[in-house]
Amino acid sequence: MRSALYAGNSTILIEDRPPVPPGVGEVQIEVAYTGICGTDLHILHGTMDHRVALPQTIGHEMSGRVAALGPDVSSLAIGTPVTVIPLRWCGTCPACRAGHRHICHRLNFIGIDSPGALQERWTVPAEVVVPLPENLSLIHGALVEPAAVAVHDVRRADLHAGEKAVVIGGGPVGLLIALVARSVGADVIVLELDVHRRAVAGQLGIRALDPAADDVAAEVESWTGGAGAAVAFEVSGSAAGVKTAVELLAVRGRLVIVGIHSQPREVDVFRFFWRELTMVGARVYERADYDTAIGLLSAGRVAAETLITHVEPLANAAAAFATLRNGGKVMKVLVDCRETSP
Amino acid sequence: MRSALYAGNSTILIEDRPPVPPGVGEVQIEVAYTGICGTDLHILHGTMDHRVALPQTIGHEMSGRVAALGPDVSSLAIGTPVTVIPLRWCGTCPACRAGHRHICHRLNFIGIDSPGALQERWTVPAEVVVPLPENLSLIHGALVEPAAVAVHDVRRADLHAGEKAVVIGGGPVGLLIALVARSVGADVIVLELDVHRRAVAGQLGIRALDPAADDVAAEVESWTGGAGAAVAFEVSGSAAGVKTAVELLAVRGRLVIVGIHSQPREVDVFRFFWRELTMVGARVYERADYDTAIGLLSAGRVAAETLITHVEPLANAAAAFATLRNGGKVMKVLVDCRETSP
Repeated sequence: MRSALYAGNSTILIEDRPPVPPGVGEVQIEVAYTGICGTDLHILHGTMDHRVALPQTIGHEMSGRVAALGPDVSSLAIGTPVTVIPLRWCGTCPACRAGHRHICHRLNFIGIDSPGALQERWTVPAEVVVPLPENLSLIHGALVEPAAVAVHDVRRADLHAGEKAVVIGGGPVGLLIALVARSVGADVIVLELDVHRRAVAGQLGIRALDPAADDVAAEVESWTGGAGAAVAFEVSGSAAGVKTAVELLAVRGRLVIVGIHSQPREVDVFRFFWRELTMVGARVYERADYDTAIGLLSAGRVAAETLITHVEPLANAAAAFATLRNGGKVMKVLVDCRETSP
Repeated sequence: MRSALYAGNSTILIEDRPPVPPGVGEVQIEVAYTGICGTDLHILHGTMDHRVALPQTIGHEMSGRVAALGPDVSSLAIGTPVTVIPLRWCGTCPACRAGHRHICHRLNFIGIDSPGALQERWTVPAEVVVPLPENLSLIHGALVEPAAVAVHDVRRADLHAGEKAVVIGGGPVGLLIALVARSVGADVIVLELDVHRRAVAGQLGIRALDPAADDVAAEVESWTGGAGAAVAFEVSGSAAGVKTAVELLAVRGRLVIVGIHSQPREVDVFRFFWRELTMVGARVYERADYDTAIGLLSAGRVAAETLITHVEPLANAAAAFATLRNGGKVMKVLVDCRETSP
């Protein structure tokens, strides 16, 4: 079978490898679609080489159907449409014992710390397999994982109907957050430098401002009647994003850290005191977030057809990475991993 | 009557001034004791001159008895022991409308933005007067306001019995936070550079570490079984305090910003993401915090007799400020404002 491997040096290779037969407690999935996300780009650029065993199949946003079951697996049936929640925890560290297994001290993130989904058949522990409803197409099912990130972020924000939220960064995760925020009844503005991404936000009915051109502070002041935003999602990973978020928040406002910050950021800690602000980190998801994400996708509430801008066959996985890296009119890039793909 | 006024240029003057008769809705209090806090020192040093109308009587931590009532005030009786919650809000700004009146956009902090308690008789709106129980001595009653700060901080931390908390800074507010944290059943360690303050913590049965000499990270690691602290209170107002707090927190740990930070601080935002940490600002108090503080002081659970290290007569108010400013074996300094004081 074909498998796309990260081989170091910004290289993706396609190799023919034998599928891994499912062992005790395992399931082999016939992969349909695998999405490429910002973390996969970080892997390609070598910044996560300390976690990846080269060469390694990567990819963790996916959909497929159950193809084979390990000897003792009875909870799933062959042919069932599924996705994977790519987290394995130790169960014994302080985080696990406190009930926060999704951020286990020794978390194994499948697709980074162990082989991923950019292959025709993927064998994973049965416990990470999540059935999908038949009414959700497999191509949209590949968005469950990033949608679950957004659901988790919105849940960490404790965002309520009628509240006003600013999303800083209008890439796939930022727009998914905006859509999930709207699904709970919040009003949303996205801040995004890229004109194409602002246009996609517009197609989704989400107001987008250009922080390089618009007077964001005045717009938010006016939009919120002088209060400031109840919530800001920092998805850009930039120093400017953190600064802007803190400036835009209302008294008791909440800043959710979604983006990856490569270095410490200057934070106006006095304003946290003065306005009694809150900053919370939000990382990956819990199982409940998957269930919510599946429900939203099934109901057509996260606009998968607009967010998926490119689908490349597995043989062209390297081109798929290049498309995402080069930017422009690109949002979510999927790789078609089906054996029928060219 | 005598009044201690801040006159600019780090100067406290004692002047003879006529008492202000209580107008409609007002109460005149015969002041017993007024505490001096860090904010009063900031005023003395001129950093808050933009808020103070020189010369002005300052002071906002106090106790006394009702001496006279305005024409329409019927909720209080002459002679009742009282303290003051020194906050006046506008009632119409976005913060007030959202129910966060204590951090009103136009908050009038009595004793800073309007005249304070360092005088023999103080006239204030009846709505800010809080009766004290007869079993609470007036000298201890002067600690209600700083104890309410600590109660508010602990409440903002959502601290629970059995959790482990680190308090960074062992001055009066830090030790009050440690005592209030203990009152809810938490285990506490205080980090404090000053040997005298560590000794006071020890007298209160609170373990204190010296961040300049002790391996704090290793101590907290061992104390928490490798988890890290559930809560850190940053009371020092220092860059190092913020950095240390973030390093010591467990997964889902909460950092409460209590200290005043004069400039933005470098914050390891990535760690907020990775451990799903929370940072919350905590400013002043709400009425419920006063009620809790009064209960704790009445029950002898905040060690007022240990925290009050100096009592100076009103005539020596300048010396009281100097005692606090000079540091050393000093914790809480009160000014005896009674007419019988020397």
